[in-house]
Amino acid sequence: MPSLLPPASYKRDGMSSEAAELETKVRAMGVDARRAARALAPRRREDKDRALEAIAVELERAAPSILAANEADLAAARSRGTRGAMLDRLLLDERRVAAMAASVREIAALPDPVGEVVSRTLRPNGLRVSRVRVPLGVIAMIYESRPNVTVEASALTLKAGNAVILRGGSDAVRSNAALAEAIGCALDTVGLPRAAVQILPFTDRDAVRVLIHQSELVDLAIPRGGEALIRYVTENARVPVVQHYKGVCHLYLDDGADPALAGRIAVNAKMQRPGVCNALECLLVDERDAERLLPPVARALLDAGCELRGDERTRALVPEAKAAASDDYGREFLDAILAVRVVGGVDGAIAHVSEYGSGHTEAILTPSAESAERWRREVDAACVVVNASTRFHDGGELGLGAEIGIATSRLHWRGPMGLESLTTMKWVVEGEGQTRR
Amino acid sequence: MPSLLPPASYKRDGMSSEAAELETKVRAMGVDARRAARALAPRRREDKDRALEAIAVELERAAPSILAANEADLAAARSRGTRGAMLDRLLLDERRVAAMAASVREIAALPDPVGEVVSRTLRPNGLRVSRVRVPLGVIAMIYESRPNVTVEASALTLKAGNAVILRGGSDAVRSNAALAEAIGCALDTVGLPRAAVQILPFTDRDAVRVLIHQSELVDLAIPRGGEALIRYVTENARVPVVQHYKGVCHLYLDDGADPALAGRIAVNAKMQRPGVCNALECLLVDERDAERLLPPVARALLDAGCELRGDERTRALVPEAKAAASDDYGREFLDAILAVRVVGGVDGAIAHVSEYGSGHTEAILTPSAESAERWRREVDAACVVVNASTRFHDGGELGLGAEIGIATSRLHWRGPMGLESLTTMKWVVEGEGQTRR
Repeated sequence: MPSLLPPASYKRDGMSSEAAELETKVRAMGVDARRAARALAPRRREDKDRALEAIAVELERAAPSILAANEADLAAARSRGTRGAMLDRLLLDERRVAAMAASVREIAALPDPVGEVVSRTLRPNGLRVSRVRVPLGVIAMIYESRPNVTVEASALTLKAGNAVILRGGSDAVRSNAALAEAIGCALDTVGLPRAAVQILPFTDRDAVRVLIHQSELVDLAIPRGGEALIRYVTENARVPVVQHYKGVCHLYLDDGADPALAGRIAVNAKMQRPGVCNALECLLVDERDAERLLPPVARALLDAGCELRGDERTRALVPEAKAAASDDYGREFLDAILAVRVVGGVDGAIAHVSEYGSGHTEAILTPSAESAERWRREVDAACVVVNASTRFHDGGELGLGAEIGIATSRLHWRGPMGLESLTTMKWVVEGEGQTRR
Repeated sequence: MPSLLPPASYKRDGMSSEAAELETKVRAMGVDARRAARALAPRRREDKDRALEAIAVELERAAPSILAANEADLAAARSRGTRGAMLDRLLLDERRVAAMAASVREIAALPDPVGEVVSRTLRPNGLRVSRVRVPLGVIAMIYESRPNVTVEASALTLKAGNAVILRGGSDAVRSNAALAEAIGCALDTVGLPRAAVQILPFTDRDAVRVLIHQSELVDLAIPRGGEALIRYVTENARVPVVQHYKGVCHLYLDDGADPALAGRIAVNAKMQRPGVCNALECLLVDERDAERLLPPVARALLDAGCELRGDERTRALVPEAKAAASDDYGREFLDAILAVRVVGGVDGAIAHVSEYGSGHTEAILTPSAESAERWRREVDAACVVVNASTRFHDGGELGLGAEIGIATSRLHWRGPMGLESLTTMKWVVEGEGQTRR
């Protein structure tokens, strides 16, 4: 373990004094976070839940100052020309602050993952061996999302016994500071370290780079936002990263699928919320049954207001479909647009998904147990879905209670990141004086 | 998923043609490995075990050519002046080749982790949600160890359904090539892709750097060897890394511990194999009981041939102990030398371990249930041990059957890396046409 006493400065040869000062400040935050994480790790569920309740109360009490800070963010955004949905993402009102407090109370009500005994064995020499869930430590969360992520990420990391350093979007900087201030006050009132939740007070990327280089102080970086942000973090990090890349989700309609069901699932997966990562981006249809399946499913999608972009065989059956460009396959439209392709059975569908999928969510609609089994076994994605909408790939829908995002990376965690994903294990070996032969 | 068709060359502006050629070759290996991994992932246990048996048979059959290659490595090492233990690490003989074949058969006999259902829930809407263990994909193993690691790493990654790219020590390059050739022949005979096990045919670090930059082709890098190698991989990787840093392991003797037991455990932990990562490097003794505990435990260690380096309070009780330098605490001696320190109870011991430990293995000897509970909860290490030797932190001893190393990183896996550590999960959601509300 590194010494937790930071030197006065991290200036190295050739480094500007501004860069050295930034590094010194970011490292000092990391040292504080590490100390807070060590203090939190052994705390019992009651202590953590009491802190979460205090945070909910403080968010409600501090709502006026949170809304004032948010109004300043909104004014600045308007003056930069931000309008419509982008402005609405930033907006807080009393209802939204109340929803944040409610989400914190929901997280308090979830079981504590820390201390869970994951496996337990008795060795022939009498040693009792167990694996126990423990907090990860210090988490760096870099995001561009709505201000509620500030609160939910803080509550989830705290409940799992971790410290967090947050770096939100620059347009929400005042709102996030006000939310963090409320969280800090609440931690004070219950006697937990304020440094358990810190906001990185720099809006430039240099500060992010310094933060994700601190491999002795930061245990995990979670980037959440656009592809550019995620690539920046992945390529610059010296700490482990769990990514949330794009969702290029497919639905494959197998031979014999029910056309009415297919239409309902396709419309739900594509049109319920086209802008989210588990929305459908490409429909694949088995060539053996395309003539029966495609026209009614396309009709349902068109009637729901969806643009279709198909290959030649699709357009022969669906005249309303536009011609798909080659880069429409593998594309995350995040809009009411769907790529469509006729493929050669399960083999063709799996080959298409392997080539164009993003490893997020891949669904099949099939009456065949054999096709379903092949899909489950052979499709490589964080979530494979049989006979249901891709929209179910979500922490709440899968029963995790709350999530910090959906991981498409393979290491450590895949899929919705709930409390368990913010923990690691330790081995506990207990004996009566055994020595090794 | 990236396209698996590599362009003819990866030459970029400012890149030498040698560098471009190296990148092209390494990427081509990565593409082959990815294809092999996809082919292996859905294979059933019988197919993988048949391949492992074929590998064992082929190692036995090819023993003469393996030993000839090893003789050439030994001759080259001797001509570079390698002697003694270092030469012995490199040496293969018929017995050691037979032991490799036996270890492959032991791995075949282990349960297959792939397909294991880790959790299963039924949602209120009737969706059946499960998490299923699946292979990780492509693993890059960079090591400096004995040639048997080539065989064991290949067998473990294959059993878990993965492809592996191996980069062993440059002194064992001919032995490793002969072992990989035998493995490749065996894969051929059972109809599995040869590219499931590949050796990186370059001995310079540039090739390693290129390999660990291929984030679309390599899912995990496992460095195993000296600290310099591990730092190089960690600092240069763009793929996830599970580290195997040094083991600075402590044993804390609590108030009331049995002195005879303490001596036996300390001698076992320090002296049974001083050069391994789970060997003891520092003994801590509670100040309340040091007068009774330290002299007999020191006597046992001195009689076993161990040099002691203590603080002042230790030296007042053990005149034979040398004075510890400040950097003797937190040091991995890997030799018959032990640092000793008198500390203020469990608090003092935990503070020392937090400051100087490497997060590997930390042991307590105590008659107190309360001290044991504090040690289990508050000490942050891959393995905490109560009333037993640190030497038990080992895959075989903890019941994993075989290990690829001991991870001291926190993400993905901690402790002995057996088959389970070489897998990830996927979520499987099954319904009857459910759509999201």
